[in-house]
Amino acid sequence: MVLSNYSTEDKVLLAVDCIIFGFDKEELKILLVKRDFEPEKGKWSLIGGFLTKEENLDQSAIRILHHLTGLNNIYMEQVYSFSKVDRDPAERTISVAYYALIDIATHDEELIKQNPIQWFSLKEAPKLIFDHNRMVEKAIARLRRRALSKPIGFELLPEKFTMRQLQKLYEAILDTKLDKRNFINKFNSFDILIKLDEKDMSSSKKGAYLFQFDQEKYKRKVEDGFNFKI
Amino acid sequence: MVLSNYSTEDKVLLAVDCIIFGFDKEELKILLVKRDFEPEKGKWSLIGGFLTKEENLDQSAIRILHHLTGLNNIYMEQVYSFSKVDRDPAERTISVAYYALIDIATHDEELIKQNPIQWFSLKEAPKLIFDHNRMVEKAIARLRRRALSKPIGFELLPEKFTMRQLQKLYEAILDTKLDKRNFINKFNSFDILIKLDEKDMSSSKKGAYLFQFDQEKYKRKVEDGFNFKI
Repeated sequence: MVLSNYSTEDKVLLAVDCIIFGFDKEELKILLVKRDFEPEKGKWSLIGGFLTKEENLDQSAIRILHHLTGLNNIYMEQVYSFSKVDRDPAERTISVAYYALIDIATHDEELIKQNPIQWFSLKEAPKLIFDHNRMVEKAIARLRRRALSKPIGFELLPEKFTMRQLQKLYEAILDTKLDKRNFINKFNSFDILIKLDEKDMSSSKKGAYLFQFDQEKYKRKVEDGFNFKI
Repeated sequence: MVLSNYSTEDKVLLAVDCIIFGFDKEELKILLVKRDFEPEKGKWSLIGGFLTKEENLDQSAIRILHHLTGLNNIYMEQVYSFSKVDRDPAERTISVAYYALIDIATHDEELIKQNPIQWFSLKEAPKLIFDHNRMVEKAIARLRRRALSKPIGFELLPEKFTMRQLQKLYEAILDTKLDKRNFINKFNSFDILIKLDEKDMSSSKKGAYLFQFDQEKYKRKVEDGFNFKI
């Protein structure tokens, strides 16, 4: 039995690609960078780079994201490693995808404005290089599973939000229209919202009540899970 | 902005480690191999090897598993990529962990018996090399999340099984005692079991009714999910 045989030819480059989803109260967006070298120069790409000797994958993702976008302190989660033999025509490269959800407004000031990076609506995003579209699909699938099995929104919504905004977020993630009354009933049954004595008057004369997450209960619900059926 | 710079020194070996969980009607077990080369020669290890040039990670996992154990046609799922800088003292190696659940009896004949491979009860498994124990923990956490959010058992139980066996499986995965009556009520509420007109007489004089999964309903429940609270 030979477990150890390998040839140095089998060594590979390890890339890290960051899928940054943002929410702007209405829409789910994705942060992309215009690639400035061959192959595929000038095309849109995920925020990516290569693992170096002195870092692990988590550290690499943080460094690459910060270097290309300016974003700091973003908690990213590893999604999946992509390894199709010819996925990068230049050289055998395995890529580990990471993803994060951020509130666009909160992080706007950190973004390096002169870099060719741009938020795209998920629905109108350009075709990406290599297998990056598959990476995005995989991350969305993960995000959906998460939204159906535990609360989501803490990282994506402002501190105070309306029911409509929370519903918009769920609709964007699940890519479907939800019935307003069902949604409200369901979310209330999870018992993680605090209704404030305060209204958002921006969208109607009557105004819409603002809500906050009850942090303790939200946290417990993330641990216990729920089953949000569409 | 430099996205492409890398040095060939940054190239890494990519290992694949397979976490094979088995169930034998009572206990959750793990398949391990005794390592026959340095470093850590003679210690117990996950079923592992290196990615080669002409295969992707899924193919590599299948090849390595088959080569070392004889197991065939096992559907493995990618769990996570482990990348601590010094995880393998011999050389910078990133390892991608895969896992599968199998019914031990069904696959017993495939196992290469002369190889130093062995089933261990999860609770009595030896300390593993490198970060393999962390890999196992990560796979168990994944397995637990899965068991709490959708039915599990189709790959692990014989075609006909008793409620006790199903409960034993859940208790093994969740590592906790479950109340019999609660468990039965909960599982019946999921409506995926068919009660057969047939009894297993091996464990008591009265016998215990045998059940089967309703394949259609089971499949739908895997898609829709549920919330199995302990």
